[in-house]
Amino acid sequence: MFHLLDIIGTMAFAMSGALTAMNKKLDPFGVFIIAFVTAVGGGTLRDIMIGRTPVGWMQDLNYVYVIVIGFILAILFRKKFDRLRTSLFLFDTIGLGVFTLIGLEKGISVGLHPVICIALGTMTACFGGVIRDILCTEIPVIFRREIYATICILGGIVFFLLRKLDLDNDVLYLTTSLVIISVRLMAVKFKWYLPALEQK
Amino acid sequence: MFHLLDIIGTMAFAMSGALTAMNKKLDPFGVFIIAFVTAVGGGTLRDIMIGRTPVGWMQDLNYVYVIVIGFILAILFRKKFDRLRTSLFLFDTIGLGVFTLIGLEKGISVGLHPVICIALGTMTACFGGVIRDILCTEIPVIFRREIYATICILGGIVFFLLRKLDLDNDVLYLTTSLVIISVRLMAVKFKWYLPALEQK
Amino acid sequence: MFHLLDIIGTMAFAMSGALTAMNKKLDPFGVFIIAFVTAVGGGTLRDIMIGRTPVGWMQDLNYVYVIVIGFILAILFRKKFDRLRTSLFLFDTIGLGVFTLIGLEKGISVGLHPVICIALGTMTACFGGVIRDILCTEIPVIFRREIYATICILGGIVFFLLRKLDLDNDVLYLTTSLVIISVRLMAVKFKWYLPALEQK
Repeated sequence: MFHLLDIIGTMAFAMSGALTAMNKKLDPFGVFIIAFVTAVGGGTLRDIMIGRTPVGWMQDLNYVYVIVIGFILAILFRKKFDRLRTSLFLFDTIGLGVFTLIGLEKGISVGLHPVICIALGTMTACFGGVIRDILCTEIPVIFRREIYATICILGGIVFFLLRKLDLDNDVLYLTTSLVIISVRLMAVKFKWYLPALEQK
Repeated sequence: MFHLLDIIGTMAFAMSGALTAMNKKLDPFGVFIIAFVTAVGGGTLRDIMIGRTPVGWMQDLNYVYVIVIGFILAILFRKKFDRLRTSLFLFDTIGLGVFTLIGLEKGISVGLHPVICIALGTMTACFGGVIRDILCTEIPVIFRREIYATICILGGIVFFLLRKLDLDNDVLYLTTSLVIISVRLMAVKFKWYLPALEQK
Repeated sequence: MFHLLDIIGTMAFAMSGALTAMNKKLDPFGVFIIAFVTAVGGGTLRDIMIGRTPVGWMQDLNYVYVIVIGFILAILFRKKFDRLRTSLFLFDTIGLGVFTLIGLEKGISVGLHPVICIALGTMTACFGGVIRDILCTEIPVIFRREIYATICILGGIVFFLLRKLDLDNDVLYLTTSLVIISVRLMAVKFKWYLPALEQK
């Protein structure tokens, strides 16, 4: 079940990368690389920083296959994405929840402090998108608009609070994901956003 | 003493990151991330490249606290930064000296050649700023203006020359930092800069 | 022989980095860093991802020397590069072949799947240029124009197909490099390119 959600999230991230790259009129190789990096970039950065190498996707070809499928789907349906926007957004939100959890878990498994684990969860969920935007020479969208990373941080705090209650792991994971997913859905529906900090 | 200077440098770097991000009108999360990356980015890259993982700031929460404080100060005083410019510049220069030393020491502790240690020192001091500028889609300022990295390289050379004299470590550190700090102050005062290399 | 080609490739990559940086009117330090990163960036990323640290160039000063020489040559001859374009292109193509092979070999030595080894070979050959372009705030040229990375992937496939024939290693290396080099020469001569994927 968890693995299925990981696959859905990876595919959604790959498709979001492919779409951004096609908007920039890149060639198919560029589109593929940006799909790839969007999907695995956050986890790669996390694995590198905690020293779990070779990084995750190098040891499980399923990620490569899922990204290739996401890339092909994004190309085939590229003219229909306006209609698919809602489904894609849902998948992306599932990815946000699942990737945050994976980052939290990895941090715990290396014995890091909860604050650092939350940083790792946020990095796993958000930095694929940051690298995608940098490769397309855009200021990362999560630094400018939308409550996105903030939700991962919130989810991480909920996770560690619940963890003190000695809940079953499945309940813990499910609750954390649902918090992240539902806050994101509400944030978009009610247009919550963080105001820009200006100097003047 | 050395640790105090490390803290001053980290805070100065975090504030310089926060200011750059606020100039780009980022939201608070974006400002925080760029403050964070400016402060720890150089050391993170160094630790990753020499294989000291989990990277430094993941094992010492003090860095996180210092950066959070720097971030909050930068937001609170963001309208007064013109008047604070001189203090900030001094702190930043202290950071330059201290971070270069830390990078040199880490390189030596892993048994690397002096040339590589100097590269690590320069990277520690300068690459937080490089990543900051990339995340803001600017060509890194240290590639364009100001003698900055060149001073770290000079400091590294002085460090290894003095090291042959079998000085006390404290004297060695102090002298190297003072060289870096005073050359930087002079470079800015007397407007030393490297001319751009043009092709035509 | 192989090592000589590695040196030629490294120098060509350093020079291409220096030229790009000079086009952006960077100062000498910026030009040097971008020459350095172009030459070793791909291999550094590969070593970090597979956990071979300290990364390659930190353990072999020859890379540093070669890059310094390439940097100096690029500055000295910067006004004559139009006439040298063909030689530089040839060197760069040799680098493409050699770096792909080195990446493939490193992947095999860590016991990774052929698909991942091909990714590592492509990354070794292409990501120095990607980082170069990002540091100059350009969308990476290999995502936009020219069949470049695609040739590395093709070379990797040829490599693993030939490898099943139980050939001598030298023959295997030579054939793979020649495939990469000759396909690149043909791609440029006959103006093969991948069409941009557009959404509308």
